[in-house]
Amino acid sequence: MKEGEMMSARIQAFVFDAYGTLFDVYSVIAELERLYPKKGEEISKVWREKQIHYSFLREMIGRYKPFSDVTREALRFACEQAGAKLDLSTEDKLMQRYKELAIYPEVKEVLSQLKAKRTAIFSNGSPEMINPLADKYQLDDVLDTIITVDRKQRYKPVPASYTAILETLEVKREEVLFMSSNPWDIIGAKSFGFHTAWINRANHVFDKLGIEADYEYKELGGILEHI
Amino acid sequence: MKEGEMMSARIQAFVFDAYGTLFDVYSVIAELERLYPKKGEEISKVWREKQIHYSFLREMIGRYKPFSDVTREALRFACEQAGAKLDLSTEDKLMQRYKELAIYPEVKEVLSQLKAKRTAIFSNGSPEMINPLADKYQLDDVLDTIITVDRKQRYKPVPASYTAILETLEVKREEVLFMSSNPWDIIGAKSFGFHTAWINRANHVFDKLGIEADYEYKELGGILEHI
Repeated sequence: MKEGEMMSARIQAFVFDAYGTLFDVYSVIAELERLYPKKGEEISKVWREKQIHYSFLREMIGRYKPFSDVTREALRFACEQAGAKLDLSTEDKLMQRYKELAIYPEVKEVLSQLKAKRTAIFSNGSPEMINPLADKYQLDDVLDTIITVDRKQRYKPVPASYTAILETLEVKREEVLFMSSNPWDIIGAKSFGFHTAWINRANHVFDKLGIEADYEYKELGGILEHI
Repeated sequence: MKEGEMMSARIQAFVFDAYGTLFDVYSVIAELERLYPKKGEEISKVWREKQIHYSFLREMIGRYKPFSDVTREALRFACEQAGAKLDLSTEDKLMQRYKELAIYPEVKEVLSQLKAKRTAIFSNGSPEMINPLADKYQLDDVLDTIITVDRKQRYKPVPASYTAILETLEVKREEVLFMSSNPWDIIGAKSFGFHTAWINRANHVFDKLGIEADYEYKELGGILEHI
Protein backbone atom coordinates (compact mmCIF):
# COMPACT_ATOMS: atom_id res chain seq x y z
CA MET A 1 0.00 0.00 0.00
CA LYS A 2 1.08 3.56 -0.61
CA GLU A 3 1.33 5.93 2.34
CA GLY A 4 -2.01 7.59 1.57
CA GLU A 5 -3.77 4.24 1.52
CA MET A 6 -2.17 3.10 4.76
CA MET A 7 -3.39 6.28 6.38
CA SER A 8 -6.92 5.80 5.02
CA ALA A 9 -6.98 2.25 6.36
CA ARG A 10 -6.23 3.53 9.84
CA ILE A 11 -8.92 6.23 9.98
CA GLN A 12 -11.95 4.86 11.81
CA ALA A 13 -13.67 8.08 12.84
CA PHE A 14 -14.25 11.41 11.11
CA VAL A 15 -14.82 14.11 13.72
CA PHE A 16 -15.93 17.64 12.89
CA ASP A 17 -15.70 20.89 14.75
CA ALA A 18 -18.99 22.79 14.41
CA TYR A 19 -18.59 26.59 14.47
CA GLY A 20 -16.77 27.85 11.41
CA THR A 21 -16.33 24.31 10.10
CA LEU A 22 -19.92 23.12 9.49
CA PHE A 23 -21.80 26.31 10.36
CA ASP A 24 -21.04 29.86 9.31
CA VAL A 25 -20.70 31.95 12.49
CA TYR A 26 -20.79 35.12 10.40
CA SER A 27 -24.24 34.35 9.02
CA VAL A 28 -25.56 36.53 11.88
CA ILE A 29 -24.21 39.62 10.10
CA ALA A 30 -27.45 40.30 8.19
CA GLU A 31 -29.49 40.34 11.41
CA LEU A 32 -26.86 42.48 13.19
CA GLU A 33 -26.80 44.87 10.26
CA ARG A 34 -30.59 45.27 10.44
CA LEU A 35 -30.35 46.03 14.14
CA TYR A 36 -27.18 48.15 13.98
CA PRO A 37 -26.68 49.65 10.50
CA LYS A 38 -23.03 49.76 9.35
CA LYS A 39 -21.91 47.98 12.53
CA GLY A 40 -23.00 44.42 11.73
CA GLU A 41 -19.73 43.14 10.36
CA GLU A 42 -17.60 44.59 13.14
CA ILE A 43 -19.93 43.32 15.89
CA SER A 44 -20.00 39.85 14.33
CA LYS A 45 -16.20 39.75 14.12
CA VAL A 46 -15.64 40.89 17.70
CA TRP A 47 -18.43 38.62 18.95
CA ARG A 48 -16.62 35.59 17.52
CA GLU A 49 -13.16 36.71 18.68
CA LYS A 50 -14.36 37.32 22.21
CA GLN A 51 -16.35 34.09 22.30
CA ILE A 52 -13.12 32.19 21.66
CA HIS A 53 -11.08 34.42 23.97
CA TYR A 54 -13.57 33.99 26.84
CA SER A 55 -13.61 30.20 26.49
CA PHE A 56 -9.79 30.17 26.64
CA LEU A 57 -9.80 32.55 29.59
CA ARG A 58 -12.38 30.57 31.58
CA GLU A 59 -10.43 27.38 30.92
CA MET A 60 -7.19 28.97 32.13
CA ILE A 61 -8.65 30.37 35.34
CA GLY A 62 -10.64 27.19 36.00
CA ARG A 63 -14.07 28.80 35.83
CA TYR A 64 -16.01 26.81 33.27
CA LYS A 65 -19.39 28.06 32.16
CA PRO A 66 -21.44 26.59 29.29
CA PHE A 67 -20.66 28.02 25.86
CA SER A 68 -24.11 29.58 25.69
CA ASP A 69 -23.15 31.82 28.63
CA VAL A 70 -19.74 32.54 27.09
CA THR A 71 -21.42 33.44 23.79
CA ARG A 72 -23.84 35.78 25.54
CA GLU A 73 -21.03 37.49 27.45
CA ALA A 74 -19.04 37.94 24.23
CA LEU A 75 -22.08 39.48 22.51
CA ARG A 76 -22.42 41.99 25.35
CA PHE A 77 -18.80 43.03 24.93
CA ALA A 78 -19.04 43.30 21.15
CA CYS A 79 -22.12 45.51 21.30
CA GLU A 80 -20.80 47.76 24.06
CA GLN A 81 -17.50 48.24 22.22
CA ALA A 82 -19.38 49.15 19.05
CA GLY A 83 -21.61 51.59 20.95
CA ALA A 84 -24.63 49.43 20.05
CA LYS A 85 -27.43 49.35 22.60
CA LEU A 86 -28.34 45.78 23.51
CA ASP A 87 -31.52 45.23 25.50
CA LEU A 88 -32.39 41.80 26.85
CA SER A 89 -34.96 40.96 24.17
CA THR A 90 -32.48 41.85 21.40
CA GLU A 91 -29.85 39.76 23.17
CA ASP A 92 -32.24 36.81 23.32
CA LYS A 93 -33.11 37.25 19.65
CA LEU A 94 -29.44 37.25 18.63
CA MET A 95 -28.73 34.21 20.81
CA GLN A 96 -31.62 32.50 19.05
CA ARG A 97 -30.02 33.36 15.68
CA TYR A 98 -26.93 31.49 16.85
CA LYS A 99 -29.08 28.36 16.92
CA GLU A 100 -30.04 28.97 13.30
CA LEU A 101 -26.64 29.64 11.70
CA ALA A 102 -26.21 28.87 8.00
CA ILE A 103 -24.72 25.49 7.17
CA TYR A 104 -21.96 25.38 4.54
CA PRO A 105 -23.37 24.08 1.25
CA GLU A 106 -21.29 20.90 0.93
CA VAL A 107 -21.70 19.62 4.49
CA LYS A 108 -24.63 17.22 4.12
CA GLU A 109 -23.38 15.66 0.89
CA VAL A 110 -19.91 15.06 2.38
CA LEU A 111 -21.33 13.58 5.57
CA SER A 112 -23.65 11.30 3.58
CA GLN A 113 -20.60 9.81 1.85
CA LEU A 114 -19.04 8.84 5.19
CA LYS A 115 -21.80 6.47 6.26
CA ALA A 116 -19.47 3.48 6.47
CA LYS A 117 -17.30 5.30 9.05
CA ARG A 118 -17.94 6.55 12.54
CA THR A 119 -18.77 10.28 12.36
CA ALA A 120 -19.27 12.90 15.05
CA ILE A 121 -19.39 16.57 15.79
CA PHE A 122 -17.09 17.66 18.61
CA SER A 123 -17.87 21.21 19.65
CA ASN A 124 -17.21 23.76 22.37
CA GLY A 125 -20.87 24.60 21.97
CA SER A 126 -23.25 23.48 24.68
CA PRO A 127 -25.93 20.91 23.71
CA GLU A 128 -28.65 23.58 23.87
CA MET A 129 -26.79 25.47 21.12
CA ILE A 130 -25.70 22.57 18.90
CA ASN A 131 -28.78 20.34 19.05
CA PRO A 132 -31.10 22.93 17.44
CA LEU A 133 -28.63 23.29 14.55
CA ALA A 134 -28.44 19.54 14.10
CA ASP A 135 -32.26 19.38 14.14
CA LYS A 136 -32.63 22.26 11.69
CA TYR A 137 -30.40 20.54 9.14
CA GLN A 138 -31.41 16.95 10.01
CA LEU A 139 -27.83 15.95 10.73
CA ASP A 140 -28.98 12.94 12.73
CA ASP A 141 -29.49 11.24 9.36
CA VAL A 142 -25.82 11.57 8.42
CA LEU A 143 -23.95 11.73 11.77
CA ASP A 144 -23.47 9.06 14.41
CA THR A 145 -23.33 11.39 17.37
CA ILE A 146 -22.75 14.86 18.75
CA ILE A 147 -20.16 15.31 21.49
CA THR A 148 -19.64 18.59 23.29
CA VAL A 149 -17.06 19.81 25.79
CA ASP A 150 -19.89 20.04 28.31
CA ARG A 151 -19.26 16.35 28.98
CA LYS A 152 -15.90 17.14 30.62
CA GLN A 153 -16.55 20.82 31.27
CA ARG A 154 -13.14 21.54 29.77
CA TYR A 155 -12.76 23.73 26.71
CA LYS A 156 -10.86 22.97 23.54
CA PRO A 157 -7.95 23.00 22.94
CA VAL A 158 -6.91 21.39 26.29
CA PRO A 159 -6.14 17.65 26.00
CA ALA A 160 -8.79 16.79 28.62
CA SER A 161 -11.48 18.06 26.26
CA TYR A 162 -10.50 15.86 23.29
CA THR A 163 -10.53 12.72 25.44
CA ALA A 164 -14.35 12.89 25.28
CA ILE A 165 -14.03 11.79 21.64
CA LEU A 166 -12.00 8.68 22.50
CA GLU A 167 -14.44 7.66 25.21
CA THR A 168 -17.59 8.26 23.19
CA LEU A 169 -16.46 6.71 19.91
CA GLU A 170 -14.23 4.03 21.47
CA VAL A 171 -11.35 4.76 19.12
CA LYS A 172 -7.65 5.41 19.53
CA ARG A 173 -6.16 8.83 18.87
CA GLU A 174 -4.42 7.73 15.68
CA GLU A 175 -7.71 6.39 14.29
CA VAL A 176 -9.32 9.84 14.30
CA LEU A 177 -9.29 12.39 11.48
CA PHE A 178 -10.31 15.73 12.99
CA MET A 179 -11.61 18.59 10.85
CA SER A 180 -11.68 22.23 11.89
CA SER A 181 -11.53 25.67 10.31
CA ASN A 182 -9.98 27.04 13.50
CA PRO A 183 -6.17 26.85 13.62
CA TRP A 184 -6.14 26.74 17.45
CA ASP A 185 -8.44 23.70 17.32
CA ILE A 186 -6.25 21.96 14.73
CA ILE A 187 -3.17 22.70 16.87
CA GLY A 188 -4.89 21.28 19.96
CA ALA A 189 -6.13 18.19 18.11
CA LYS A 190 -2.80 17.54 16.39
CA SER A 191 -0.91 18.00 19.65
CA PHE A 192 -3.35 15.51 21.22
CA GLY A 193 -2.49 12.90 18.60
CA PHE A 194 -5.29 13.07 16.03
CA HIS A 195 -4.78 13.29 12.30
CA THR A 196 -5.97 16.73 11.31
CA ALA A 197 -7.44 18.50 8.30
CA TRP A 198 -7.64 22.27 8.29
CA ILE A 199 -10.68 23.52 6.38
CA ASN A 200 -9.38 26.85 5.12
CA ARG A 201 -12.33 28.38 3.29
CA ALA A 202 -11.07 31.98 3.30
CA ASN A 203 -7.41 31.49 2.40
CA HIS A 204 -6.20 32.44 5.88
CA VAL A 205 -2.64 32.17 7.21
CA PHE A 206 -2.11 29.29 9.64
CA ASP A 207 -0.75 30.03 13.11
CA LYS A 208 3.02 29.86 13.50
CA LEU A 209 3.57 27.51 16.43
CA GLY A 210 5.49 24.91 14.48
CA ILE A 211 2.50 22.55 14.71
CA GLU A 212 0.89 22.06 11.30
CA ALA A 213 -2.27 20.40 10.03
CA ASP A 214 -1.68 17.12 8.22
CA TYR A 215 -4.00 18.23 5.42
CA GLU A 216 -5.49 21.49 4.20
CA TYR A 217 -8.62 21.79 2.08
CA LYS A 218 -10.65 24.69 0.73
CA GLU A 219 -13.87 22.94 1.71
CA LEU A 220 -14.96 19.68 3.33
CA GLY A 221 -15.11 17.70 0.10
CA GLY A 222 -11.34 17.30 0.18
CA ILE A 223 -11.48 14.90 3.11
CA LEU A 224 -13.24 12.25 1.03
CA GLU A 225 -9.84 11.09 -0.21
CA HIS A 226 -9.41 9.52 3.24
CA ILE A 227 -12.42 7.21 3.11
CA MET B 1 -10.42 53.26 60.09
CA LYS B 2 -12.49 53.73 56.97
CA GLU B 3 -12.70 50.95 54.42
CA GLY B 4 -10.15 52.58 52.09
CA GLU B 5 -7.65 52.90 54.91
CA MET B 6 -8.18 49.30 56.04
CA MET B 7 -7.47 48.17 52.50
CA SER B 8 -4.31 50.31 52.30
CA ALA B 9 -3.07 48.88 55.58
CA ARG B 10 -3.32 45.39 54.16
CA ILE B 11 -1.43 46.01 50.90
CA GLN B 12 2.18 44.92 51.33
CA ALA B 13 3.22 44.49 47.73
CA PHE B 14 2.55 46.45 44.54
CA VAL B 15 3.01 44.18 41.54
CA PHE B 16 2.98 45.41 37.94
CA ASP B 17 2.39 43.68 34.67
CA ALA B 18 4.95 44.92 32.11
CA TYR B 19 3.65 44.91 28.52
CA GLY B 20 0.92 47.49 28.03
CA THR B 21 1.08 48.48 31.69
CA LEU B 22 4.61 49.93 32.07
CA PHE B 23 5.79 49.68 28.47
CA ASP B 24 3.96 50.66 25.30
CA VAL B 25 3.85 47.59 23.04
CA TYR B 26 2.65 49.77 20.18
CA SER B 27 5.79 51.93 20.24
CA VAL B 28 7.15 49.58 17.55
CA ILE B 29 4.70 51.10 15.05
CA ALA B 30 7.16 53.78 13.82
CA GLU B 31 9.78 51.16 13.00
CA LEU B 32 7.20 48.87 11.37
CA GLU B 33 5.86 51.79 9.34
CA ARG B 34 9.37 52.59 8.07
CA LEU B 35 9.82 48.97 7.01
CA TYR B 36 6.27 48.43 5.72
CA PRO B 37 4.64 51.74 4.72
CA LYS B 38 0.91 51.95 5.57
CA LYS B 39 1.02 48.52 7.24
CA GLY B 40 2.75 49.39 10.52
CA GLU B 41 -0.33 49.88 12.65
CA GLU B 42 -2.06 46.70 11.45
CA ILE B 43 1.07 44.58 11.87
CA SER B 44 1.64 45.96 15.36
CA LYS B 45 -1.96 45.22 16.37
CA VAL B 46 -1.95 41.67 15.03
CA TRP B 47 1.54 41.04 16.46
CA ARG B 48 0.25 41.87 19.94
CA GLU B 49 -3.02 39.93 19.55
CA LYS B 50 -1.24 36.83 18.32
CA GLN B 51 1.46 37.11 20.98
CA ILE B 52 -1.25 36.84 23.63
CA HIS B 53 -3.19 34.19 21.70
CA TYR B 54 -0.09 32.01 21.25
CA SER B 55 0.83 32.19 24.94
CA PHE B 56 -2.74 31.11 25.84
CA LEU B 57 -2.63 28.35 23.24
CA ARG B 58 0.74 26.99 24.37
CA GLU B 59 -0.45 27.01 27.96
CA MET B 60 -3.62 25.11 27.05
CA ILE B 61 -1.86 22.41 25.04
CA GLY B 62 0.94 22.14 27.60
CA ARG B 63 3.76 23.20 25.27
CA TYR B 64 5.47 26.09 27.00
CA LYS B 65 8.09 28.05 25.12
CA PRO B 66 9.72 31.29 26.36
CA PHE B 67 7.85 34.47 25.50
CA SER B 68 10.68 35.55 23.20
CA ASP B 69 9.89 32.56 20.97
CA VAL B 70 6.15 33.24 21.22
CA THR B 71 6.74 36.89 20.29
CA ARG B 72 8.84 35.91 17.28
CA GLU B 73 6.20 33.42 16.09
CA ALA B 74 3.50 36.07 16.45
CA LEU B 75 5.58 38.54 14.42
CA ARG B 76 5.91 35.99 11.62
CA PHE B 77 2.16 35.54 11.50
CA ALA B 78 1.45 39.28 11.57
CA CYS B 79 3.85 39.98 8.69
CA GLU B 80 2.67 37.08 6.56
CA GLN B 81 -0.97 38.04 7.03
CA ALA B 82 -0.16 41.63 6.03
CA GLY B 83 1.79 40.45 2.98
CA ALA B 84 4.94 41.99 4.45
CA LYS B 85 8.19 40.21 3.62
CA LEU B 86 10.15 39.38 6.77
CA ASP B 87 13.74 38.22 6.37
CA LEU B 88 15.71 36.99 9.36
CA SER B 89 17.72 40.18 9.83
CA THR B 90 14.52 42.30 9.85
CA GLU B 91 12.98 39.83 12.29
CA ASP B 92 16.00 40.17 14.58
CA LYS B 93 15.86 43.95 14.31
CA LEU B 94 12.16 44.02 15.28
CA MET B 95 12.75 41.60 18.15
CA GLN B 96 15.50 43.97 19.32
CA ARG B 97 13.00 46.87 19.21
CA TYR B 98 10.83 44.90 21.61
CA LYS B 99 13.64 45.22 24.14
CA GLU B 100 13.56 49.00 23.68
CA LEU B 101 9.83 49.72 23.99
CA ALA B 102 8.77 53.16 25.21
CA ILE B 103 8.00 53.45 28.92
CA TYR B 104 4.83 55.31 29.91
CA PRO B 105 5.73 58.77 31.17
CA GLU B 106 4.49 58.45 34.77
CA VAL B 107 6.00 55.05 35.55
CA LYS B 108 9.28 56.02 37.22
CA GLU B 109 7.74 58.77 39.35
CA VAL B 110 4.96 56.46 40.58
CA LEU B 111 7.40 53.64 41.37
CA SER B 112 9.68 56.05 43.25
CA GLN B 113 6.79 56.91 45.57
CA LEU B 114 6.34 53.25 46.53
CA LYS B 115 9.77 52.80 48.07
CA ALA B 116 8.39 51.90 51.48
CA LYS B 117 6.48 48.95 49.95
CA ARG B 118 7.55 45.78 48.23
CA THR B 119 7.37 46.32 44.47
CA ALA B 120 7.81 43.95 41.55
CA ILE B 121 7.17 43.41 37.89
CA PHE B 122 5.39 40.16 37.08
CA SER B 123 5.49 39.48 33.36
CA ASN B 124 4.86 36.79 30.77
CA GLY B 125 8.02 38.14 29.16
CA SER B 126 11.16 36.05 29.42
CA PRO B 127 14.09 37.54 31.39
CA GLU B 128 16.03 38.18 28.16
CA MET B 129 13.17 40.45 27.04
CA ILE B 130 12.35 42.22 30.32
CA ASN B 131 15.84 42.75 31.75
CA PRO B 132 17.02 44.98 28.88
CA LEU B 133 13.93 47.18 29.39
CA ALA B 134 14.59 47.41 33.11
CA ASP B 135 18.22 48.32 32.38
CA LYS B 136 17.30 50.90 29.77
CA TYR B 137 15.02 52.75 32.19
CA GLN B 138 17.08 51.99 35.34
CA LEU B 139 14.12 50.37 37.05
CA ASP B 140 16.40 48.57 39.50
CA ASP B 141 16.53 51.88 41.38
CA VAL B 142 12.78 51.91 41.98
CA LEU B 143 11.75 48.23 41.92
CA ASP B 144 12.56 45.42 44.36
CA THR B 145 12.52 42.63 41.84
CA ILE B 146 11.43 41.29 38.46
CA ILE B 147 9.52 38.03 38.36
CA THR B 148 8.64 36.29 35.12
CA VAL B 149 6.49 33.29 34.28
CA ASP B 150 9.67 31.56 33.15
CA ARG B 151 10.15 30.60 36.79
CA LYS B 152 7.17 28.21 36.64
CA GLN B 153 7.00 27.91 32.86
CA ARG B 154 3.28 28.54 33.11
CA TYR B 155 1.67 31.51 31.38
CA LYS B 156 -0.65 34.06 32.89
CA PRO B 157 -3.54 33.92 33.59
CA VAL B 158 -3.35 30.37 35.05
CA PRO B 159 -3.22 30.30 38.87
CA ALA B 160 0.08 28.38 38.82
CA SER B 161 1.76 31.40 37.22
CA TYR B 162 0.70 33.92 39.88
CA THR B 163 2.01 31.72 42.70
CA ALA B 164 5.52 32.82 41.67
CA ILE B 165 4.66 36.22 43.17
CA LEU B 166 3.72 34.76 46.56
CA GLU B 167 6.89 32.68 46.72
CA THR B 168 9.24 35.44 45.61
CA LEU B 169 7.80 38.28 47.70
CA GLU B 170 6.73 36.11 50.66
CA VAL B 171 3.31 37.70 50.85
CA LYS B 172 -0.25 36.42 51.03
CA ARG B 173 -2.64 36.82 48.12
CA GLU B 174 -4.74 39.43 49.91
CA GLU B 175 -1.64 41.55 50.59
CA VAL B 176 -0.98 42.08 46.88
CA LEU B 177 -2.28 44.91 44.69
CA PHE B 178 -1.81 43.85 41.10
CA MET B 179 -1.78 46.36 38.24
CA SER B 180 -2.38 45.53 34.58
CA SER B 181 -3.73 47.15 31.44
CA ASN B 182 -4.80 43.74 30.16
CA PRO B 183 -8.31 42.68 31.21
CA TRP B 184 -7.44 38.95 30.94
CA ASP B 185 -4.55 39.52 33.36
CA ILE B 186 -6.77 41.42 35.80
CA ILE B 187 -9.36 38.62 35.58
CA GLY B 188 -6.68 36.00 36.26
CA ALA B 189 -5.17 37.97 39.15
CA LYS B 190 -8.54 38.77 40.71
CA SER B 191 -9.68 35.17 40.38
CA PHE B 192 -6.42 34.13 42.07
CA GLY B 193 -7.18 36.35 45.06
CA PHE B 194 -5.19 39.54 44.51
CA HIS B 195 -6.56 43.05 44.78
CA THR B 196 -6.53 44.44 41.28
CA ALA B 197 -6.27 47.80 39.54
CA TRP B 198 -7.04 48.02 35.85
CA ILE B 199 -4.91 50.67 34.13
CA ASN B 200 -7.25 51.70 31.32
CA ARG B 201 -5.27 54.27 29.34
CA ALA B 202 -7.34 54.10 26.15
CA ASN B 203 -10.87 54.04 27.57
CA HIS B 204 -11.47 50.42 26.58
CA VAL B 205 -14.45 48.24 27.52
CA PHE B 206 -13.66 45.63 30.18
CA ASP B 207 -14.33 41.98 29.42
CA LYS B 208 -17.75 40.63 30.42
CA LEU B 209 -17.00 37.57 32.51
CA GLY B 210 -18.60 38.89 35.68
CA ILE B 211 -15.17 39.30 37.26
CA GLU B 212 -14.32 42.97 37.70
CA ALA B 213 -11.22 44.91 38.69
CA ASP B 214 -11.37 46.39 42.20
CA TYR B 215 -10.11 49.72 40.88
CA GLU B 216 -9.80 51.40 37.51
CA TYR B 217 -7.41 54.25 36.71
CA LYS B 218 -6.52 56.18 33.55
CA GLU B 219 -2.83 55.94 34.40
CA LEU B 220 -0.63 54.49 37.15
CA GLY B 221 -0.74 57.59 39.36
CA GLY B 222 -4.17 56.57 40.62
CA ILE B 223 -2.77 53.67 42.61
CA LEU B 224 -0.93 56.01 44.99
CA GLU B 225 -4.14 56.32 47.00
CA HIS B 226 -3.35 52.81 48.29
CA ILE B 227 0.04 53.58 49.85
